[in-house]
Amino acid sequence: MTDQHGYSAEDALIARYFKPLATDPGAFDLGDDAAILKSHGDDIVATTDAIVEGVHFLPDDPPDTIARKALRVNLSDLAAKGATPAGFVLTLALRAVEEAWLEPFAHALGRDAIQFGCPLLGGDTVSTPGPLMISITAFGRVPPGRMLHRTGATAGDIVVVTGTIGDAALGLEVLKGGAAAAAFADDAAAGQMLVGRYRTPQPRTALAEAVRDHAHAAMDVSDGLAGDLAKLCKISGVSAVIEAGSIPLSAAAATLLSRGVVGIEAIVSGGDDYEILCAIPPAAFEAFRQAARTAGVEISAIGKVVAGSSAPCFLDNRGDRIRLPRLSYSHL
Amino acid sequence: MTDQHGYSAEDALIARYFKPLATDPGAFDLGDDAAILKSHGDDIVATTDAIVEGVHFLPDDPPDTIARKALRVNLSDLAAKGATPAGFVLTLALRAVEEAWLEPFAHALGRDAIQFGCPLLGGDTVSTPGPLMISITAFGRVPPGRMLHRTGATAGDIVVVTGTIGDAALGLEVLKGGAAAAAFADDAAAGQMLVGRYRTPQPRTALAEAVRDHAHAAMDVSDGLAGDLAKLCKISGVSAVIEAGSIPLSAAAATLLSRGVVGIEAIVSGGDDYEILCAIPPAAFEAFRQAARTAGVEISAIGKVVAGSSAPCFLDNRGDRIRLPRLSYSHL
Repeated sequence: MTDQHGYSAEDALIARYFKPLATDPGAFDLGDDAAILKSHGDDIVATTDAIVEGVHFLPDDPPDTIARKALRVNLSDLAAKGATPAGFVLTLALRAVEEAWLEPFAHALGRDAIQFGCPLLGGDTVSTPGPLMISITAFGRVPPGRMLHRTGATAGDIVVVTGTIGDAALGLEVLKGGAAAAAFADDAAAGQMLVGRYRTPQPRTALAEAVRDHAHAAMDVSDGLAGDLAKLCKISGVSAVIEAGSIPLSAAAATLLSRGVVGIEAIVSGGDDYEILCAIPPAAFEAFRQAARTAGVEISAIGKVVAGSSAPCFLDNRGDRIRLPRLSYSHL
Repeated sequence: MTDQHGYSAEDALIARYFKPLATDPGAFDLGDDAAILKSHGDDIVATTDAIVEGVHFLPDDPPDTIARKALRVNLSDLAAKGATPAGFVLTLALRAVEEAWLEPFAHALGRDAIQFGCPLLGGDTVSTPGPLMISITAFGRVPPGRMLHRTGATAGDIVVVTGTIGDAALGLEVLKGGAAAAAFADDAAAGQMLVGRYRTPQPRTALAEAVRDHAHAAMDVSDGLAGDLAKLCKISGVSAVIEAGSIPLSAAAATLLSRGVVGIEAIVSGGDDYEILCAIPPAAFEAFRQAARTAGVEISAIGKVVAGSSAPCFLDNRGDRIRLPRLSYSHL
């Protein structure tokens, strides 16, 4: 089982594939029981998100996209809190240690670690008879007291989202062979774009500083825009009015909507967007827009924060309230 | 699924049971996407360990002991690194959200959080069709540059362990109804003591500062004394000679050993001890012993670090080398 120095063959495989990702001196080449995070005078921001096979990703998703998703759902939280990535620890629950799976998984994770400046600091690999599970705790840094919160949205603020909404949920529909798949039978590229949005979130790390500088409140959209906005409003003690026609859609999502394959309710309550939702005071909006342009991140104003304690309302093009049978996608 | 504010019934249950554990202001009452860890000028030490049902604990282990074990295996790492606990984040993978399980689990976790000064900072609850799994990332603080490492053991150092060795592995044997269970058919208390050592590790948090002040190198014993000592020696570039007769045993373990129910090989290669193994320079030994007494932690000198690159050797009472068919217990 183990060599004369107490190391197992599995230890060796894990060292081979994961040690190259541990580029931070505080990781001690994964050769110790713990890592060190230097704060450099900043606040350390910590967030944790896990993904489970068959729940957050599909059993036949490629190992490289599973790796990216596991890290990026956490990077998305850091970005929405205004934090610069500093590193992460990884728990990997595996049924078996297979090089053919570990190699592309670790390689993709390593590329993301470099791309987002977020090195591996440590981890634990455990055996499970159940589904594959990856749990990551990611760390970021903000200047003292400057982490952005869900609370703080104020009546009059402009509600802003990054990127496009609904693609990931539609991508899951495509993978499941639903109506969305049939609609793109003649347009594989559009279907594949949606699948890519489901499998590989794009954390808005480049926008973290602008969000920190200009937003009153922010969170990432992971469980559906409607539900996540409702949570942000509730904890801020406000409400919001959203113009559904202003919600940014990809061409593929717009096509499905115009053909009646999906309704706007499905788009605003679908999960896995991993975009930033934030409340920007009107006086800061122009500066925020400039900063977003510099960062190369698309932003869209979709409505306003208003006083009140009712759930946010979504209005159609005629100004009528859209009924939302559900607000969020719940994995639990 | 969710109320008008985007919160599910599960969200409410989790808030009810886990929010009371989030006593640190940096946890924001679990109402945000991330937590803040203030370094207060110290280095932040991070460690992560997961436990899986059927692998690291038994399906019928009580929820309170599962909670304690999940946190304490991490606290044990912090103690061995010389770190004072600062907080933890929790990933809980559940088949179902059952109040009858969550309530005692969270209650026990909360008591440990208070006892060890390690509040809950955040977490993620995910659904799994597979075994229950708890992954914890725990944080501690050490003065800058003072985290203790596995490396640093020097020829001449005294090899020291805390507590007693082998009880937890024997406790697992008792639970499995093996020979150890039969041996204690007439002495339920001894069997239950061993089971308690398997289910509820005793992290040596009280000794963290003394280890930091006096040890050249340290780690916690989690996979078996022989294998863990071999790892510490290998990375320190040294070897060790251990006198098996000096290894501290509980009365129950000593009884099983004297009756021939188990051999010393099983005791030094069994897992789940969660004691501290460290290398103390002779000049510091008396001060370390005093500090341990003050901390109320038993310590035992079990051998010496020696020059060389071979695996540590364990000698019996006649000075003959004990053959160890395996060094560690591997969960993977």
